[in-house]
Amino acid sequence: MTIYTLGPEASYSYFATKKLFPDSHIHCCPTISDVFEQVNKNKNNLGVVPLENMIEGTVRETFDLLLENKLHIYDITQSQINHCLAAQNKDFSIITSHQQALAQCRKYLQKNYRKINLEDTKSTSLAAQLALENSKYAAITSKEAAEYYGLRILDENISDYPNNKTKFALISHKPNSKTHLNSLAALIPNNPDQPGLLIKMLFPFQENGVNLTKIESRPNKQNLNEYIFYIEFEGDARQARARKIFTYLEKDLQICKVKILGGQCTKLS
Amino acid sequence: MTIYTLGPEASYSYFATKKLFPDSHIHCCPTISDVFEQVNKNKNNLGVVPLENMIEGTVRETFDLLLENKLHIYDITQSQINHCLAAQNKDFSIITSHQQALAQCRKYLQKNYRKINLEDTKSTSLAAQLALENSKYAAITSKEAAEYYGLRILDENISDYPNNKTKFALISHKPNSKTHLNSLAALIPNNPDQPGLLIKMLFPFQENGVNLTKIESRPNKQNLNEYIFYIEFEGDARQARARKIFTYLEKDLQICKVKILGGQCTKLS
Repeated sequence: MTIYTLGPEASYSYFATKKLFPDSHIHCCPTISDVFEQVNKNKNNLGVVPLENMIEGTVRETFDLLLENKLHIYDITQSQINHCLAAQNKDFSIITSHQQALAQCRKYLQKNYRKINLEDTKSTSLAAQLALENSKYAAITSKEAAEYYGLRILDENISDYPNNKTKFALISHKPNSKTHLNSLAALIPNNPDQPGLLIKMLFPFQENGVNLTKIESRPNKQNLNEYIFYIEFEGDARQARARKIFTYLEKDLQICKVKILGGQCTKLS
Repeated sequence: MTIYTLGPEASYSYFATKKLFPDSHIHCCPTISDVFEQVNKNKNNLGVVPLENMIEGTVRETFDLLLENKLHIYDITQSQINHCLAAQNKDFSIITSHQQALAQCRKYLQKNYRKINLEDTKSTSLAAQLALENSKYAAITSKEAAEYYGLRILDENISDYPNNKTKFALISHKPNSKTHLNSLAALIPNNPDQPGLLIKMLFPFQENGVNLTKIESRPNKQNLNEYIFYIEFEGDARQARARKIFTYLEKDLQICKVKILGGQCTKLS
């Protein structure tokens, strides 16, 4: 069993993975797409990828890759996100971080560093590495990463939102045999142009007492105004109640295909 | 009347604005948030901000700012997005662009420039400027911007998706008095934890024959798993049919507040 996550080492994904597999060696990949590619190579491989942040919403690349690949969400875990500003010293001229981290500290940055240049990097950890290599950079990164790279912490808890969390998906070749507390699926319309389509697809959930907790339209990437829909609902997609809905949508109404993406088995703390 | 858009000059937003107001001077702002701030300063000011891209989906910052501010979507316009790779010469070592442009060229980059470093910038136009200032950068930018900055076009139409378009919103203090073909609104739940909430909010649209074309859950930024919902529907939010739905949701069911964000009056070509 080999475990892949979004790197580099000391990223939020890395620390979330380390919490799940404290004794395993963790391979860090440069992009989420690379994590999927590596996990695909061997049926025993596992991956940990960011799924949703409390502020920024879904990580769209992860959802798009779950739709394109045959991998399953085996379980979902959650980490507290505590951004800090770290650098070699106070004489930096650029603040760098992952674009979501920059967005999460937008108000802090506008208040304290309005005139400073911002530069996106691929991860909060790479930002810390950049700050270590070049004193013109300050990084928005986790406290753990700042300490890992020996940076000076200039400011702590700088996120605009105090209770910021990110969900991570553990991805695998086999679905989890444990019961899902929540399931994720994609509804892919056969004819995206049909009036009333969205309600037609959602109403069977209501009729069968399955509580939809989330829905997100995503462009189908063919035409503007044509969407696929990612949904999250309470319960297990493999149980009779949910299966009945999918059969109704796919065979009776013939309005969409349903792809089960996996689910969450462990209660989030 | 002063017009603000997301800069710098020669950005996709700039060219979209220039098409709407060919004879006006256009002020370029560094962020979408700055466009809103500038437009807010004077009731005659207008802004043009990106709203949705066919590949990447909604521009979340724009929607979040529409919710926070009192400005209206006065109309919606649309531009073809044709990315090209441009640099001073072929000896570049970093490819830079807006993160959405990088994402839209993901397959092209993985195929042709897998080992090259990618760096996000705030816009495709800034990427072109960087490439002009420093020959180690190649930019993913519009053909217009490459020509504007006198760069050499190394490759054209490099987007993974041939028919890529972006919608831009014209924002103003007053709503458009013309009839909206489509309207945008936010549904803000009073109690986000209520089971069946999503269907309860959407069903009245079905019952009143209002066709919902899009829905997106966005974190309410207070708690994970609590959302507000951006919707798009056919018709004008100020007409009786839609008003009846909003009154029902707000007063009878008392399950959510409705904020009308504005609408699209001109048919998109």
